Amino acid sequence: MKLNCDMGESYGSWQMGDDKAVMPWVDMANIACGFHASDPDIMSDTVACAVEHQVTVGAHPGYDDKPGFGRRSIPHSPAAISHLVAYQTGALDAVCQLHGTSVSYVKPHGALYHDMMAKPDVLNAILAAIAAMNRLRPSPLSLMVLAKADNSETETAAQAFGVPLLFEAFADRAYDEAGNLVSRSQPGAVHHDAARIKQQAMELASGTVTTHSGSVLALHADTLCVHGDNPESIATIADIRKAIAL
Amino acid sequence: MKLNCDMGESYGSWQMGDDKAVMPWVDMANIACGFHASDPDIMSDTVACAVEHQVTVGAHPGYDDKPGFGRRSIPHSPAAISHLVAYQTGALDAVCQLHGTSVSYVKPHGALYHDMMAKPDVLNAILAAIAAMNRLRPSPLSLMVLAKADNSETETAAQAFGVPLLFEAFADRAYDEAGNLVSRSQPGAVHHDAARIKQQAMELASGTVTTHSGSVLALHADTLCVHGDNPESIATIADIRKAIAL
Amino acid sequence: MKLNCDMGESYGSWQMGDDKAVMPWVDMANIACGFHASDPDIMSDTVACAVEHQVTVGAHPGYDDKPGFGRRSIPHSPAAISHLVAYQTGALDAVCQLHGTSVSYVKPHGALYHDMMAKPDVLNAILAAIAAMNRLRPSPLSLMVLAKADNSETETAAQAFGVPLLFEAFADRAYDEAGNLVSRSQPGAVHHDAARIKQQAMELASGTVTTHSGSVLALHADTLCVHGDNPESIATIADIRKAIAL
Amino acid sequence: MKLNCDMGESYGSWQMGDDKAVMPWVDMANIACGFHASDPDIMSDTVACAVEHQVTVGAHPGYDDKPGFGRRSIPHSPAAISHLVAYQTGALDAVCQLHGTSVSYVKPHGALYHDMMAKPDVLNAILAAIAAMNRLRPSPLSLMVLAKADNSETETAAQAFGVPLLFEAFADRAYDEAGNLVSRSQPGAVHHDAARIKQQAMELASGTVTTHSGSVLALHADTLCVHGDNPESIATIADIRKAIAL
Repeated sequence: MKLNCDMGESYGSWQMGDDKAVMPWVDMANIACGFHASDPDIMSDTVACAVEHQVTVGAHPGYDDKPGFGRRSIPHSPAAISHLVAYQTGALDAVCQLHGTSVSYVKPHGALYHDMMAKPDVLNAILAAIAAMNRLRPSPLSLMVLAKADNSETETAAQAFGVPLLFEAFADRAYDEAGNLVSRSQPGAVHHDAARIKQQAMELASGTVTTHSGSVLALHADTLCVHGDNPESIATIADIRKAIAL
Repeated sequence: MKLNCDMGESYGSWQMGDDKAVMPWVDMANIACGFHASDPDIMSDTVACAVEHQVTVGAHPGYDDKPGFGRRSIPHSPAAISHLVAYQTGALDAVCQLHGTSVSYVKPHGALYHDMMAKPDVLNAILAAIAAMNRLRPSPLSLMVLAKADNSETETAAQAFGVPLLFEAFADRAYDEAGNLVSRSQPGAVHHDAARIKQQAMELASGTVTTHSGSVLALHADTLCVHGDNPESIATIADIRKAIAL
Repeated sequence: MKLNCDMGESYGSWQMGDDKAVMPWVDMANIACGFHASDPDIMSDTVACAVEHQVTVGAHPGYDDKPGFGRRSIPHSPAAISHLVAYQTGALDAVCQLHGTSVSYVKPHGALYHDMMAKPDVLNAILAAIAAMNRLRPSPLSLMVLAKADNSETETAAQAFGVPLLFEAFADRAYDEAGNLVSRSQPGAVHHDAARIKQQAMELASGTVTTHSGSVLALHADTLCVHGDNPESIATIADIRKAIAL
Repeated sequence: MKLNCDMGESYGSWQMGDDKAVMPWVDMANIACGFHASDPDIMSDTVACAVEHQVTVGAHPGYDDKPGFGRRSIPHSPAAISHLVAYQTGALDAVCQLHGTSVSYVKPHGALYHDMMAKPDVLNAILAAIAAMNRLRPSPLSLMVLAKADNSETETAAQAFGVPLLFEAFADRAYDEAGNLVSRSQPGAVHHDAARIKQQAMELASGTVTTHSGSVLALHADTLCVHGDNPESIATIADIRKAIAL
């Protein structure tokens, strides 16, 4: 079970997160690509930090929306989705080449991630872009998606494009019976108790999750998404790391 | 002698140039990469048009300055120059992959081009970025630079990084005795007479240019830069194409 | 019956429309404010041109979305709508002061205009911003809205904030029985025939419009919105001008 | 002796400084206007906080350069300087009107401030914009400039435009014999010792400053510029506040 974290989300003189503190604890860095956050200098610094800690680099493309941090769903045609995913992934890949590494996977950001999980044409547009990039790559880019109880639709789409998938789960979010995340607008959607988060991480590492209503659901995940926003959340990453190593 | 032209410099709903009218006449398209102009959708349209006309694609990176169209020299560290060249070239390369092609060369835009020719650390930063990207490419990216009477400094720098050069000349610009372009602030810096432009194109195709003061100078060029701003300039491209084909 | 036209929608080196050709024919210029289009230099040039032709200046604020030209509805809180309308109107007003004039009215642009007509909380947020600015102004800013057969909801909202309204109609758009514009997705939504446009302009000047299905509807309008995108549309403005002057 | 501080320099989801902690300690808030930092929502929040603490609001306009945080000198014509100062000041003034207050002065930011002090045509362009805005204002906007030993050139320029000046000094910067700030590239340019800063604040409050080389220079200042970047600097503001109140 790998740990992944969104990183490189500073911009110009503005800092966000503490990438240097988080990097030693994670396996995969989802690095912002200059549309919802970041710029070429920050991307380079973040890739350098990932290389130093032997962390796998993923592209974290978002909508072109710095004022909204990529969290607002902005209407795009499927073709436009393909273009923006290719653009950002290619940009980060070239920055990686400055540091002797390359992008290994794509994890869309914010509203683009949500739209990917909710709308088949957005998912297909992202897969089409990745498939086109994979034709020339020695090893193919994967797409990271949300692990659900039933992933068959996502898997069918990905197979049609020949794109490998990585399933991610959350140790700090409540799941419903269908294996979906409970909406943040609902009470109890986010776990704040460190013990509860640690326990869910261990469960997920063994392939199950206890839902909001208390039943145990099978849920396959390749990676857990963790957060590095503040000292407390970074401490939680260390906890999760230790828990899943047992 | 190839013809190259700056293309894909529209942005969102704003049009610039008439790429569809120019593309059939040129060999190399310098395609803007979203910093001084363009966006992922326009890049995709422009690459598709280049592919249709079997035109070689070059990256045309600029400073991150849409309000100034990349024509203002904005202070950057050498590292920041490397990052922005890699970012933009990689972004265009991925968009090319959506169309089954790839970037063949890099021609910096506007103030970045001028700074490259004027400042060795800018040139070196660009070369360093290209060299890093070339390590993984089946055929290396070239760098397009201004042809001068004495290119030894540029060639020495490029050789140190193992980056091939493409030298470009201008049929519509006056040259001085050192083989530099006469500054636009000087009278007679730009030729407006079609016959004069056509004649200089033929001269350059044979390896010489008649300078501002009337002497004949040896000047090696691989490509001529042409402009597609308006119907008149597009007609001039056709004239040049015919003249150099003789 | 006044003619209003969207203007100043160029950006940096990118031109849009031919403001100099249109300005002599219109009474009111809706000038873009730097969010969906324009910049301080273009705003200044456009205001100068309006002053030269004694054209009334209106602020034409939009969503902060140059890539989408303000045509995409981007989620905003009502407070954020108030802030962006005030920001852009104040910015244009100060540029007007450089030319000895001031903003007279506000006409939201694109998706913001559509959201205003469709969502009461957007309309109220815009009215709240205008009302706050009006407290210090010698003559109040008006808000330009779409004229419908029944404007009572819009009028009630505006009266609550004490903001005067300007109702605009379109000579080149088909109207349905409720006095709404027929959606552009429907056949016949836009009139392309010059005689048809001219006839509808004359009708609207007399307070009626013939609907899509042929009935005659009372429709009060203070101003007609005209377009200056190309030579043909500018010729149409001259036609409308002459028609309504009869 | 008033204390002024740059504020509202967050952007979207990115925080900078701790305005809520600083606001109670200062008299004048230089509020960023959306070009080098900030956006309409952050401007509104910052103005609301200033109103709550009865702090005078100043416009803090900068070059249109978020990637460089307005710290890079970007070439502008004098007219373009006037436009961007008017645009940003007017934008903030309208946001102020949402909170029942208004802008009282203008303090250019970063590279624009430096260019203003170094280049008479930049200073004149800023003064021209302010003078135009002042024609309609019940009380005129002032311009905040750097206090030097000899302010006669700045004063002559301001008088020609009828614009009042506010002179600012720094408690934490070394001064040379001409009353200029010692360049940050020089050793000892910035005081880090709290006692040294406090002593210089008291000196400046009494109209003098001890220079880098130890002599005492008369220096008139209306206001001291303080910084709210971190808890330490905020503690220093409280120290300065107490020192100058003696």
